[in-house]
Amino acid sequence: MRNVTKDNITEVFAAYFGEDTDPRTRQVLIALARHIHDFAREVNLSHDEWRKGLEFLEWAGRITTPERNEFVLLSDVLGLSSLVDMMHSTPEATSSSVLGPFHVSNPPALEIGGDMKRDFEGEVLLVEGTVRDTSGKPIPRAMIDIWQTAPNGMYSSQDPDQDIHSFHGLMTCDWEGRYAFTTVRPVSYTVPDDGPVGEILRAAGRHPWRPSHLHYIVSAPGHRQLVTEVFPDDDPYLDQDTVFGVRDDLVMTYVPQPAGSFPEGFALSGKVEGSYSRVDFDLVLAPLHEA
Amino acid sequence: MRNVTKDNITEVFAAYFGEDTDPRTRQVLIALARHIHDFAREVNLSHDEWRKGLEFLEWAGRITTPERNEFVLLSDVLGLSSLVDMMHSTPEATSSSVLGPFHVSNPPALEIGGDMKRDFEGEVLLVEGTVRDTSGKPIPRAMIDIWQTAPNGMYSSQDPDQDIHSFHGLMTCDWEGRYAFTTVRPVSYTVPDDGPVGEILRAAGRHPWRPSHLHYIVSAPGHRQLVTEVFPDDDPYLDQDTVFGVRDDLVMTYVPQPAGSFPEGFALSGKVEGSYSRVDFDLVLAPLHEA
Repeated sequence: MRNVTKDNITEVFAAYFGEDTDPRTRQVLIALARHIHDFAREVNLSHDEWRKGLEFLEWAGRITTPERNEFVLLSDVLGLSSLVDMMHSTPEATSSSVLGPFHVSNPPALEIGGDMKRDFEGEVLLVEGTVRDTSGKPIPRAMIDIWQTAPNGMYSSQDPDQDIHSFHGLMTCDWEGRYAFTTVRPVSYTVPDDGPVGEILRAAGRHPWRPSHLHYIVSAPGHRQLVTEVFPDDDPYLDQDTVFGVRDDLVMTYVPQPAGSFPEGFALSGKVEGSYSRVDFDLVLAPLHEA
Repeated sequence: MRNVTKDNITEVFAAYFGEDTDPRTRQVLIALARHIHDFAREVNLSHDEWRKGLEFLEWAGRITTPERNEFVLLSDVLGLSSLVDMMHSTPEATSSSVLGPFHVSNPPALEIGGDMKRDFEGEVLLVEGTVRDTSGKPIPRAMIDIWQTAPNGMYSSQDPDQDIHSFHGLMTCDWEGRYAFTTVRPVSYTVPDDGPVGEILRAAGRHPWRPSHLHYIVSAPGHRQLVTEVFPDDDPYLDQDTVFGVRDDLVMTYVPQPAGSFPEGFALSGKVEGSYSRVDFDLVLAPLHEA
């Protein structure tokens, strides 16, 4: 090992593993080291650049809290989060998309047809759909965890003026897999750019905007949990999402509905007199084990 | 961008750069993203493994302080720090080696022939040598920053019982480039292994030991600063340094000297009556600009 050189250090690293180590851990760590070494060699990484990289990680560490995870954001803007999503999505199922850092662990229950916007003002949105399996069969009683920004562009955990449960809801679909709720249209917003990730975005000539979206986590026994988002097809940032989260099958038309047409059977029935928009978003879950 | 796939995301990332971005930043960030993407694709990184990796970085962030930098340690045990050192060392100069996290920014002055061990007990070591340029000419008045562990295996910044300046010294060589000081023999020690780096070492079946060494930073106008270490040739961890810091030309014999032979001209002259060891370690600095 004292004859380690810049050309053999990856082999030296690999040879240093103990014999009874977990094969998968070994595979992942050796591949990680090899790609890090190859990166450093390819760009002839300088000491200053190496130090700057470490300082970025230290900075990310200092500002990371349960409410703001700069490491997840770094993974997001580098495209790694989306890549891992895409590698594990099932072509027959709805595409998955980034979880993001704003999910809360105890969302409040939301009844079918319930209202998630509470007292917030904005374009009323009626969201509904059915959760199905890959054969098209509805999945009864699927669980949908939904969250989004308030009209000010902030999630509850970012905004001291919002209750932590604001714009979060956990819904159990009916026996035919149907869900429905009302909300206000979420808005395009910027990811936090006052940390190291912001520096990277500026260095790359990129903006911190994400197109407007609703987040979903959909779960049902016997099916793979789906983490995804739905985007309106008229958002200006659809083709420049800074976290690479948009997929074609997640882009939906928010169809304008005339005033006076708000349907019966919702918590807001009788209260929405003006126009609103309606979005149908069906979700297809992959089986937990491939057939 | 809404047609991003696991196969084209690296190209999408690269194409997203603004046109007036710094070419070097662009090169480094695109190469970094490509290697991260290739790593994830090659090992088919799972969501759980991705999350575990992020949790490791978060953990590193939580325990990193000015005195303990877990990110530097991570770079060290992955071999990245040594790789960057080796990529930028000059073959004609003394090999560089890892800086490590235990350097202090204001080392106390140490006269030529001075004693760095103060009141600590241990095997007395007389260290001397000459700083030269690559043509063999002594470099007058070179500056040497030296630090090491106490006999208990701890650096001053790790040990509440040591003064922060304990076993640190800054020496100006004489006009013939010579330096000399006394100390006690540094000991093999373990890098901190109670954090995420310790988990990685255990998963790899590796121990956290480093062979005993003295750290040097050598500076002189017109020459490249050299960060290096010197190791005794009888240390049991020479071929298993957990941070890959050993180089052949940094391994020296600590030559035992008989009792009563301690030379004149040192702060400890007349005080060392027993045996001691002597190590000659000459240092060769590369020119700041290649000829």
